[in-house]
Amino acid sequence: MTTSTLNMATSIKNDLILRTLKGASTERFPVWMMRQAGRYLPQYIALRNKYSFFERVQTPELAAEITLQPVDIIGVDAAILFSDILVIPQAMGMEVQLVEKLGPLLPDPIKTTNDLDRLQVPDIEEKLGYVTSAIKLIKQELNGRVPLIGFAGAPWTLLCYMVQGKGSKTFDEAKAFCYQHPQLAAQLLQKITDSTILYLKAQIKAGADLIQVFDSWGGLLSKTDFETWSLPYLSQITAAIQQEAPVILFAKGAWQSLPDMANTGARGLGIDWCIEPETARKLAGKDIALQGNFDPSKLLLPIPELKKEVERMLTRFGTDCWIANLGHGILPNIPVDHARAFVETVKNFERK
Amino acid sequence: MTTSTLNMATSIKNDLILRTLKGASTERFPVWMMRQAGRYLPQYIALRNKYSFFERVQTPELAAEITLQPVDIIGVDAAILFSDILVIPQAMGMEVQLVEKLGPLLPDPIKTTNDLDRLQVPDIEEKLGYVTSAIKLIKQELNGRVPLIGFAGAPWTLLCYMVQGKGSKTFDEAKAFCYQHPQLAAQLLQKITDSTILYLKAQIKAGADLIQVFDSWGGLLSKTDFETWSLPYLSQITAAIQQEAPVILFAKGAWQSLPDMANTGARGLGIDWCIEPETARKLAGKDIALQGNFDPSKLLLPIPELKKEVERMLTRFGTDCWIANLGHGILPNIPVDHARAFVETVKNFERK
Repeated sequence: MTTSTLNMATSIKNDLILRTLKGASTERFPVWMMRQAGRYLPQYIALRNKYSFFERVQTPELAAEITLQPVDIIGVDAAILFSDILVIPQAMGMEVQLVEKLGPLLPDPIKTTNDLDRLQVPDIEEKLGYVTSAIKLIKQELNGRVPLIGFAGAPWTLLCYMVQGKGSKTFDEAKAFCYQHPQLAAQLLQKITDSTILYLKAQIKAGADLIQVFDSWGGLLSKTDFETWSLPYLSQITAAIQQEAPVILFAKGAWQSLPDMANTGARGLGIDWCIEPETARKLAGKDIALQGNFDPSKLLLPIPELKKEVERMLTRFGTDCWIANLGHGILPNIPVDHARAFVETVKNFERK
Repeated sequence: MTTSTLNMATSIKNDLILRTLKGASTERFPVWMMRQAGRYLPQYIALRNKYSFFERVQTPELAAEITLQPVDIIGVDAAILFSDILVIPQAMGMEVQLVEKLGPLLPDPIKTTNDLDRLQVPDIEEKLGYVTSAIKLIKQELNGRVPLIGFAGAPWTLLCYMVQGKGSKTFDEAKAFCYQHPQLAAQLLQKITDSTILYLKAQIKAGADLIQVFDSWGGLLSKTDFETWSLPYLSQITAAIQQEAPVILFAKGAWQSLPDMANTGARGLGIDWCIEPETARKLAGKDIALQGNFDPSKLLLPIPELKKEVERMLTRFGTDCWIANLGHGILPNIPVDHARAFVETVKNFERK
């Protein structure tokens, strides 16, 4: 960790998550929620109704305002940059449309060497300056209250969208591309990886205190395929930035590769609710923080039962390094007081 | 197993799958493909273009013709009834629409006790006589070439559709219903279970040689929730019919519950490609057949590589009881000769 990052870290009042990622035993579990800056918040909906998705992402003042909403309203222990994983394909030269409720559309997906050749490893300040500007603004407005999480999509997950051109249950076209053109796929993954490393370094330089890499579709791969198409690129990214900021890898569903991911140098691994905390710990080993793993649907429980379920999860986390979180993004239909109850229950829980 | 079933089984020329489910070591692995009677076959498309989904399902001659297509064209070791898991909610009194490419729609989903009360455990011959008629016709036309697999959806998976009213990535409304109204949910699951048992007994009586229960959404549940909302009903179904025909349970993604499912009396367990064969065997134990686990997207590999991948899988199956299959349904965009290559590779593979 560089001196400047260390200085920044020490100036953060609530550094629970950073200490947890260093392997320290903390007085209570840190807590945040994936997609905490999102559609369950009326204050977010108000901005969504006024501005398009990319207006919100590309206007630093709006991105900052949205990023801060859950810190102010819900009281989470970390802010996470409001942005989207598809800003990287966009910065590399692809057209990306994000249609509300329909999901992403990349009308000109990658199929050939020519398609690959027209992609560029972007100049970050030129193409993604709005992100670093947003981060600087967020850090000012946070004023050291909680750390800021920067993030990017995993190369495999980005390849899924860049080749399939849209969301999919199976991403079979993306997989077929890898199976039929393995060298081309590897080149594409490398180009995404190079871009992502530059992007994350810029995020850290601008003030991000830790980084999460989202491999949302890692769990669609067999263990062997994950080792071919995802893990090497996650490893490269982690190796390139781990000296500058701690890294959390979240490859949803890729439970079989928890031991391998634990060996990348990452300081934390995300897990969903479809693996038991004890099993995840056994697979990941003792020397890494785990993050998760509440079923987002359980936030729909009546609040007293919701609290009991959260406490049950926290009890199972034991005395190891854990960051309380959902096992996937918060759903748009979660009442705000339920989200708050989740966070409050973690904060009030006494670690034994 | 009753005498009549035994007689039927002995009259089947290719009984590889039945022997495998009895725990016998067979000269080669049996092979079939989930959704083998489906949209990758031009002969199926021809019928789809002429008849609506429910015309195909409810007309015994059409259902029989479609069921037999992959036996004749691809050479699989078992036929599986062409039907849909949603015929049960339909027979129980719900409106079910199946819109091509859009998926199922149940416009009046279950929300209250009143909704539950209007559901009936159906008279099978009255409501689902078209299924038993189709089975009798299929058995005639099969003339003992290969066994016929009957099937039903698992109660949890049917509840998902009956409460959510349509497909979903998360089935959060279905889960919320269970969390908020656990007694009502249990009553609904019991009613589905009672209907399913009658339905499967009727299928067996009409000639189905073995049964597969599909819990397509079992993997959306945590282990504890699976033990609450799915496993008890799978156990009831298996207990009720295992004396009449062998049962395969396929709860996609529910790898953590393989040990529990192995204890239900089922003779086989399906697995997807996101668990390694060795891990699945370790979890399920030695005394049960396993079925799977080829990634359906891998059928898009060039045929020489496809063959190598299939052989790699079969080598990992070792000397235990395995049924070669995909880890999920075959995709509509698979070339017919690739599907055939999958089946042929299994047939030509020499077990060590």
